[in-house]
Amino acid sequence: MEVIKGGVTSPKGFSAAGVHAGLKKAKKDMALLVSAVPAASAAAFTTNKVKAAPVLWDMDILKGGKAQAVVINSGNANACTGEKGLEDAEETAAYAAGKLGLEKDMVYVSSTGVIGVPLDMAAIRHGIDMLVPALSADGSDAAEAILTTDTFVKEAAATAVIGGVKVTVAGMAKGSGMIHPNMATMLSYITTDAVISQPLLQKLLGTTVEDTFNMISVDGDTSTNDSVIVLANGMAGNAMIEEGCEGYEDFEEAFRFVLGELAKDIVKDGEGAGRFIEMTVSNALTKKDAKILARSVISSSLVKAAFFGADANWGRILCAMGYSGADFDPSLVDLSFSSPSGSMAVVKGGEPIPFDEGKAKKILLEKEVKVEADCHQGEASATAWGCDLTYDYVKINGDYRS
Amino acid sequence: MEVIKGGVTSPKGFSAAGVHAGLKKAKKDMALLVSAVPAASAAAFTTNKVKAAPVLWDMDILKGGKAQAVVINSGNANACTGEKGLEDAEETAAYAAGKLGLEKDMVYVSSTGVIGVPLDMAAIRHGIDMLVPALSADGSDAAEAILTTDTFVKEAAATAVIGGVKVTVAGMAKGSGMIHPNMATMLSYITTDAVISQPLLQKLLGTTVEDTFNMISVDGDTSTNDSVIVLANGMAGNAMIEEGCEGYEDFEEAFRFVLGELAKDIVKDGEGAGRFIEMTVSNALTKKDAKILARSVISSSLVKAAFFGADANWGRILCAMGYSGADFDPSLVDLSFSSPSGSMAVVKGGEPIPFDEGKAKKILLEKEVKVEADCHQGEASATAWGCDLTYDYVKINGDYRS
Repeated sequence: MEVIKGGVTSPKGFSAAGVHAGLKKAKKDMALLVSAVPAASAAAFTTNKVKAAPVLWDMDILKGGKAQAVVINSGNANACTGEKGLEDAEETAAYAAGKLGLEKDMVYVSSTGVIGVPLDMAAIRHGIDMLVPALSADGSDAAEAILTTDTFVKEAAATAVIGGVKVTVAGMAKGSGMIHPNMATMLSYITTDAVISQPLLQKLLGTTVEDTFNMISVDGDTSTNDSVIVLANGMAGNAMIEEGCEGYEDFEEAFRFVLGELAKDIVKDGEGAGRFIEMTVSNALTKKDAKILARSVISSSLVKAAFFGADANWGRILCAMGYSGADFDPSLVDLSFSSPSGSMAVVKGGEPIPFDEGKAKKILLEKEVKVEADCHQGEASATAWGCDLTYDYVKINGDYRS
Repeated sequence: MEVIKGGVTSPKGFSAAGVHAGLKKAKKDMALLVSAVPAASAAAFTTNKVKAAPVLWDMDILKGGKAQAVVINSGNANACTGEKGLEDAEETAAYAAGKLGLEKDMVYVSSTGVIGVPLDMAAIRHGIDMLVPALSADGSDAAEAILTTDTFVKEAAATAVIGGVKVTVAGMAKGSGMIHPNMATMLSYITTDAVISQPLLQKLLGTTVEDTFNMISVDGDTSTNDSVIVLANGMAGNAMIEEGCEGYEDFEEAFRFVLGELAKDIVKDGEGAGRFIEMTVSNALTKKDAKILARSVISSSLVKAAFFGADANWGRILCAMGYSGADFDPSLVDLSFSSPSGSMAVVKGGEPIPFDEGKAKKILLEKEVKVEADCHQGEASATAWGCDLTYDYVKINGDYRS
């Protein structure tokens, strides 16, 4: 695997555009991503029972296993909009398909923004009219247009070599953003020019999402619109990727890298986040236990508030592991903190060990802090990523909608 | 059932005391609760895998089914203290038992406060030396001594009539408080002079805790020391309470009232809490679904932040119901808000209905706000209680330990 600078248009045959269609006041609010040829498609959607209309549309598209375009709008989530919302999602796909010379069942649709308000379809059509001629090999406008209150564009790309042929995997994402009146939504789009079967692509997406997007937390709320959509158009011309084939591990590593970078960027840009926390649980009994333990720690409000205060509050970390429901023996746990300013053990065998508070403070004041919990019971490990709980989080999410 | 003013010493035969033993700088930090005769005892403890030493001691006492005293200290949780912690818990019970003329296996021990620091046993012995002669029919000093950062004493009492004989149920509790370096702990003590078998008392405690203490959330973190301990000394002389006996429902109502009041007081006094939220889910498919839905809403950081801003953010409520894992049909849900300033429907059949933002703001600016979600699917209902997420919560829990 080689990390490269790039975005969704880095793999061969993908073009994209981003425009201001009028759903937001002034910022770009619509994006279009197109593959030159039909692509194998995989996707993962929110597990929320309340699913936005575009998610319901996309779940149908996924059944076909192939797609060629994605239309994305910010400014309106098209959620809690009833029958009208479903019609609007379908019309968005159909209108874009018409302009692109495709069948509507080859077009995914994503929305993020305000909920409970019907889509302004005149603006959507106007946006598509502008997007199609604006399609280019530069994906940056699209990556910008999908943002809501994100403070930076999220893109990642890497290459892998399959049987001597270089393939590229890339992606863009938007993180948790607050829009009038609303909720946080995570959207991510992955493109690759690799030749890979749809079932294997879906399987790879499933396992990779488990270790990346499902291991991050900003505030524990799962939105109605969360979606990860993958398009693999095969234009690299490599020999079909099979599990265990020559280069498979390289491809898997590139795929995992792209999703991992996007996931971490989402946390780093979490609402009000001031500090990035990487929590690794090692030597747990099972992978499942390791994941549950790591996720419980980065999801704890008390732990998150302690990191806001750069407080070496090992007790809250041990406590969050304790109530996680995972199987482990608290009396065997070692805990340590590290950052560019150094590292420090704070708990050994479940009991505190004396440490220099000044040194701990210095370590924890860095923007990125790592915590490691060694369970000393098995061989499984997992990492989760979170952020601190800040005044700004409360301010952003508590301010009256206006 | 009749609500009365009182606390743990309101039922016949109970005495209590609270003193400053020296674990805290100046505030009362030890309490003793004693029954004149052996009492049937029931208890429920934290489900956290990391259990403090006194919890482990108490789990053994509970096996005996009988107890006569409880020694409680604040200022030190005796958690993550290894073998020494277990010895200290036992010695605390034994020392108090000696002074009271009891066997040590009749004495519960509770601790709350800093974790990872050995108990100052000289202070504990000194405290017990003062507590025993200070025992009186006034429980207020004890209710004060168990507090940590609570801002008010939490007591409740009620009477019921069993076969013509009046019995009393009462309790005291402490809520979530921050102590150097630490976590939140919930402790609650229930006394009654009713004659009731230990198995029935334990059963009643289990079902009542499910509807009261298990339906509140301040920040979602479950401490290492959470305990609810019940002593029933039988001194009212009523006919043994059996399920379905004359007066059983009255007793159950009184018991539920006491636990419910203490649970709600804990939320009202939650760290940084400015607004109390009562979330009722009605007409759900099952009781379990109703509970999961109600709890998910009051636990959501986004919902809590919206209440801080007095924002009628129905979308976050519907979203939190959606990701709760409970079975319900979002397209059937009606949502409404109410408070002493009025009431207002905001969602009908899963879609928003127009409402007056000014009126909504007025309703939500009250100190106590009710939310009702009608699922229109079944006949089950449940209520959960929570609080808003405020700057003060972050400040209290984020400030460096000092």
